[in-house]
Amino acid sequence: MTRPLLLHPDRLFPADPKTRGVARALYAQVRDLPIISPHGHTDPAWFAGNARFTDPASLLIVPDHYVFRMLYSQGVALDRLGVPTVDGSATESDPRAIWRLFADHYHLFRGTPSRLWLDWVFAEVFGLDVVLESGTADRYYDTIDAALATDAFRPRALFERFGIEVIATTESPLDPLDHHRAIRDSGWGGRVITAYRPDPVVDPDTPGFADNLHRFCAMAGEDATSWPGYLAAHRFHRARFRAAGATSTDHGHPSATTADLPPQAAAALYARVRQGGADAADVELFRAQMLTEMAGMSVADGMVMQLHPAVHRSHNAAVLARFGRDKGGDIPLPGEFVAGLKPLLDRHGNDPRLTLVLFTLDEDTYARELAPLAGHWPALRLGPPWWFHDSPEGMRRFRQRTTETAGFYNTVGFNDDTRAFLSIPARHDVARRMDCAWLAQLVAEHRLPEDEAHELARALAYDLVKKAYRL
Amino acid sequence: MTRPLLLHPDRLFPADPKTRGVARALYAQVRDLPIISPHGHTDPAWFAGNARFTDPASLLIVPDHYVFRMLYSQGVALDRLGVPTVDGSATESDPRAIWRLFADHYHLFRGTPSRLWLDWVFAEVFGLDVVLESGTADRYYDTIDAALATDAFRPRALFERFGIEVIATTESPLDPLDHHRAIRDSGWGGRVITAYRPDPVVDPDTPGFADNLHRFCAMAGEDATSWPGYLAAHRFHRARFRAAGATSTDHGHPSATTADLPPQAAAALYARVRQGGADAADVELFRAQMLTEMAGMSVADGMVMQLHPAVHRSHNAAVLARFGRDKGGDIPLPGEFVAGLKPLLDRHGNDPRLTLVLFTLDEDTYARELAPLAGHWPALRLGPPWWFHDSPEGMRRFRQRTTETAGFYNTVGFNDDTRAFLSIPARHDVARRMDCAWLAQLVAEHRLPEDEAHELARALAYDLVKKAYRL
Amino acid sequence: MTRPLLLHPDRLFPADPKTRGVARALYAQVRDLPIISPHGHTDPAWFAGNARFTDPASLLIVPDHYVFRMLYSQGVALDRLGVPTVDGSATESDPRAIWRLFADHYHLFRGTPSRLWLDWVFAEVFGLDVVLESGTADRYYDTIDAALATDAFRPRALFERFGIEVIATTESPLDPLDHHRAIRDSGWGGRVITAYRPDPVVDPDTPGFADNLHRFCAMAGEDATSWPGYLAAHRFHRARFRAAGATSTDHGHPSATTADLPPQAAAALYARVRQGGADAADVELFRAQMLTEMAGMSVADGMVMQLHPAVHRSHNAAVLARFGRDKGGDIPLPGEFVAGLKPLLDRHGNDPRLTLVLFTLDEDTYARELAPLAGHWPALRLGPPWWFHDSPEGMRRFRQRTTETAGFYNTVGFNDDTRAFLSIPARHDVARRMDCAWLAQLVAEHRLPEDEAHELARALAYDLVKKAYRL
Repeated sequence: MTRPLLLHPDRLFPADPKTRGVARALYAQVRDLPIISPHGHTDPAWFAGNARFTDPASLLIVPDHYVFRMLYSQGVALDRLGVPTVDGSATESDPRAIWRLFADHYHLFRGTPSRLWLDWVFAEVFGLDVVLESGTADRYYDTIDAALATDAFRPRALFERFGIEVIATTESPLDPLDHHRAIRDSGWGGRVITAYRPDPVVDPDTPGFADNLHRFCAMAGEDATSWPGYLAAHRFHRARFRAAGATSTDHGHPSATTADLPPQAAAALYARVRQGGADAADVELFRAQMLTEMAGMSVADGMVMQLHPAVHRSHNAAVLARFGRDKGGDIPLPGEFVAGLKPLLDRHGNDPRLTLVLFTLDEDTYARELAPLAGHWPALRLGPPWWFHDSPEGMRRFRQRTTETAGFYNTVGFNDDTRAFLSIPARHDVARRMDCAWLAQLVAEHRLPEDEAHELARALAYDLVKKAYRL
Repeated sequence: MTRPLLLHPDRLFPADPKTRGVARALYAQVRDLPIISPHGHTDPAWFAGNARFTDPASLLIVPDHYVFRMLYSQGVALDRLGVPTVDGSATESDPRAIWRLFADHYHLFRGTPSRLWLDWVFAEVFGLDVVLESGTADRYYDTIDAALATDAFRPRALFERFGIEVIATTESPLDPLDHHRAIRDSGWGGRVITAYRPDPVVDPDTPGFADNLHRFCAMAGEDATSWPGYLAAHRFHRARFRAAGATSTDHGHPSATTADLPPQAAAALYARVRQGGADAADVELFRAQMLTEMAGMSVADGMVMQLHPAVHRSHNAAVLARFGRDKGGDIPLPGEFVAGLKPLLDRHGNDPRLTLVLFTLDEDTYARELAPLAGHWPALRLGPPWWFHDSPEGMRRFRQRTTETAGFYNTVGFNDDTRAFLSIPARHDVARRMDCAWLAQLVAEHRLPEDEAHELARALAYDLVKKAYRL
Repeated sequence: MTRPLLLHPDRLFPADPKTRGVARALYAQVRDLPIISPHGHTDPAWFAGNARFTDPASLLIVPDHYVFRMLYSQGVALDRLGVPTVDGSATESDPRAIWRLFADHYHLFRGTPSRLWLDWVFAEVFGLDVVLESGTADRYYDTIDAALATDAFRPRALFERFGIEVIATTESPLDPLDHHRAIRDSGWGGRVITAYRPDPVVDPDTPGFADNLHRFCAMAGEDATSWPGYLAAHRFHRARFRAAGATSTDHGHPSATTADLPPQAAAALYARVRQGGADAADVELFRAQMLTEMAGMSVADGMVMQLHPAVHRSHNAAVLARFGRDKGGDIPLPGEFVAGLKPLLDRHGNDPRLTLVLFTLDEDTYARELAPLAGHWPALRLGPPWWFHDSPEGMRRFRQRTTETAGFYNTVGFNDDTRAFLSIPARHDVARRMDCAWLAQLVAEHRLPEDEAHELARALAYDLVKKAYRL
């Protein structure tokens, strides 16, 4: 016996009828606005090649760490979910078997945003009308598989169907950006841009760091053994990325620590980390110095800077050894921004040409540090709730804890930050609904006039992100 | 003039009529489910001897640190409340005087869970129908005192009346478990089991630690001077506890730090702490190593492991000196689980035979550390809100901050963790109501189908705890 | 086209009709109670001289860091807002130009408490009935300017109109308290008292500390080179402040660290910091010791002690250099109270003569540290949400996180803590509304009888603050 799959039109709105009415009215205005996705991890090859997605499991389960980490936490081996291994040893290769296993455990997602996103994809993208469970696994598989075989489900068709105005991918400076060139050369009208993510040539803890530096400078025709050469290489690649549409850089650091060394000290530090064997303090100091260097280059070239600090990557040694990085074992750490950012901010934070967007996985910093910082420093803006906090409750807490000190205009709208392409509209829809719900509460409690709430609803869904990311 | 004491049937449910309706329906289904109490501090002697409770004050005030700490915070001396002293010097001995003093200050509990629990006990257990205050103190005292003199209020009768399916007490490995044996031998059908709490022989900071080690190993016939002997003694006592029904161990540590030393290093560390005079780092390292040893033994013998870290015990030196430990002066500390648990988890965390239930008094770790950890590691589960957070708002925050990342199925239902026997049904009732309220909100906001909410309500009240604790 | 400015009578009350009805009833009872303002930063010169306020910008914008920090965060230069400079170089001096610039950016305050306070001032104090925006800037300016020219808007008239029963200012021990004397001598009936804020002679990091010590002791006729002389000077000034009405002291420290050194060690420490050149550890230790000394003096003289720890002052070096301190660049730091307060509490915390009111900007400490501490130690009380948390959401979180462990009676009512005189009634009104909203929720969820909620509403608005501050 199947159960109906319903996406209620009022989902995520407060239950109180009056508040819900306001939320509905606000949402009606923003529901169909184009999607601006300024930060994410979709694969540009999809849009370059426009090839069909191969099967339901490879599209929706195998690459989605939100999905397989939950199953793993309840004892389902990653091998059985077809997650590929570092050494190439075989894991489950039958997509239907993977799909059935997923369906058997779909109840684990009750109350999670993954459930909201997946149900949206099932209903809105594939037209499914029953709940996923063991008994409907094959019906799901067959429906999705058949759809993927059609042209309407190729990446570019979905891009257009989803109403995406612009999407940014994220690339390393070592990336030749061939896919972005191919997209541009193809004549297709979709706007897919890149973003500059220099971690592999900025973080000395990156495996192969010395080799990365060599290639990075060689591509730019610069001298990797010199600090000025290394900085010039950054300028070269930043310009190359801007030519591929980039308007932003992205930095994933273990902490938000910054430094502002005199040039000679910075050069000496670079020499130490370049040769390998620098100690942990030097490694951290180099990352810290590079954030300030990147901010300085942003002042010059106008690229918006994003900082995503404080995650313990790959907490599970056994999973890391067998399956590699990004397999659901990353765990947040406490955040610290006040002392950490001071050197960078004292150098560039009052410069109106700089925009630095801050993200955190430590919600305690919202009201204590981030909102006070963003409510003072001209360069700072607050990124949306990220990763584990890209969820209804996470969004609610973000607004509850940042609005009163930083206001709305020091925030930058929503980022989906995802590689799960099909979920992008669902994620933006959750954000729009939750922002409308928050505004509706302010209106219902007479803390904000309704006409101003309408203006804000549009700003949060569309205007602010476009402005902040200079799109 | 007395005021009526009312336990409203809708208490703790959201005010919104639609949401309340859903909560009511969910709660109707779970209200009368048996109570599983897998972790607590009731005295097994009560059930062994089945003696009458002596008087209202000795039952409800003198032993309850939730109660007397609040009065103490407002200037009521512990002496006047009859709290016994370390040196045996006299304190108030007239239970009626203690009761009147308590009644005079009952307004202090407004808005606290103690008030909810006590009112429930007064109304449901003793049939009182007016609010406790100075003017009703004697009426209360007489009513309760009279009831306690009857057989219907003996421990076993209350156990049965409360619908307790199983209750776990907590004992030291030095405990002979005579009371549990007496309960079993008595032929009474109530299931009262123990839990293995080895802190007195694991934490070198315990007063009398060396002596404890000696008795611990002697009881097991093992050599206390050898690391293998010490570990074997743990295995002996764990088996002894399992024979007395135990399915779990419990560990109250100053931090969640774990270690995984090579055997020789562990043996050397044991030698240092055994002889006394180990420095603070060694003491912490020994506790850390022992958590990993306990996890290894749990893999082998199937006992569920519980960790309650990060409390500053006995913050008030004067109260400690006069009245001893557990007198309301324990204060929570910041929690840290990510670096702390990694050694244990890398050793045993992927083993499906291990269940490690984590508790915290630092709610900031819910969304930042605990939910991400439990949403990945197969061995981890999240214990319910504990101690200061065993309250309506505490429960609400727990679900709001853990559900979206860890789901419901990585949590283990409710623990009352109490020595206040009469309050046990009230505490479980609060938990059931608050979980139903949370589920009702998800339903009312169309984030969860109502049929799934019904399944979850039962899981949270009964199924999950039974499964997690292997009862 | 102008838009109406409305202060809805139900503002800040929950939308649910039943809960709102309870909130309304509770609020009706406390709305018109006199204002007790036991902690703030109004200028006693206003009440001494009773001079007219000069113009709208100088009254409402130039001195209000809540206001200009938000504009600054969005790129409006402080120069253009007329903020005075350290070196006296000119900034904007036309108050109408400043006012227009403010009006152009008024949308930035949407969702902030500043908006609530300002709208209240505009509507209730000046009778304005349209929303402030660029198009109404001149109408606002002219209306306010004209009002300020009348006697009804002089400080004493507003004091009386606002229903202020007593207000405390805050002064340094170096202050001669002439304004307070003048107020008293004037025969005016308004009760304006001072509070003892010894930071300039307690914190060795204060610029001019040595000179401060000299003047401090000279005013008291004590020997600044001796530790007993220094302590005696404190006693002298505390008595002088008490004679000017003070019932409290206030301490703004970088942390809540306290110490309890033997007298000789304290004397030696004083000698080191007095001569300058003490290291950071000594400086921190001296502040720590002085908190315990101040507590001891409070035991003796009955002054209520307030502690406001953990702010990084003047985070923006460029703003500090040009505009000085208190220019919107202060950022909160993590709080720590458990280890920090133990020395002071073990010395004086069980003494019923001491009241120590704790404030925090780190909300994570509410449930983890502050409520457990205040729910045990007789001397401790919790101050209201402060500064960045003096807001509807901040107040809601305070009650949600402290009530269940500390109850209501370990809190002390509301402090406005402001130099924005005209906003004082608005701030107290927000606090009264939010407390009524919280109580109404407890009533609507049947967690508190309604008659007790009425008693509590009055206690939170009036009784508790009067008792705690011994007013």
